[in-house]
Amino acid sequence: MTAYTVTVTVRLKHGVLDPEAETTRRSLERLGFDLEALRSADRFEIDLEAEDPEAAEQRVDEMAERLLANPTIHDYDVEVDER
Amino acid sequence: MTAYTVTVTVRLKHGVLDPEAETTRRSLERLGFDLEALRSADRFEIDLEAEDPEAAEQRVDEMAERLLANPTIHDYDVEVDER
Repeated sequence: MTAYTVTVTVRLKHGVLDPEAETTRRSLERLGFDLEALRSADRFEIDLEAEDPEAAEQRVDEMAERLLANPTIHDYDVEVDER
Repeated sequence: MTAYTVTVTVRLKHGVLDPEAETTRRSLERLGFDLEALRSADRFEIDLEAEDPEAAEQRVDEMAERLLANPTIHDYDVEVDER
């Protein structure tokens, strides 16, 4: 078994409103910053042991499907690093 | 001016309790997943125009200091990509 850190980034799908990001963008502009767009995402870093990177990715993929992301409104990607 | 997407990842400092991550970890375990640790982080993707990557990074660094991160409890890192 090898130790991995798997990172899941969960983003709102294109077209889904993100009022929190919109508020953050406006606050930055009010502070005088110049920006075109701001998107927010959730990131989970998961430490686990698995046979190989493929097994680690598959397990975390399943975690994302079942709990971390809501397929109706979210897209996600999974990145595997050996620890 | 060049168009950049700058990504800020805001994490809780080591030792700061993260009850939300702890709840997520337990829920995953209750679903039958085997994991050692789970950390959560916020990620902001900011589109902006700047003279060069250094200027883009500096501007977003300032955004993080002033609004996106709370220096008492957060660490953050900044990553610049050309769009």
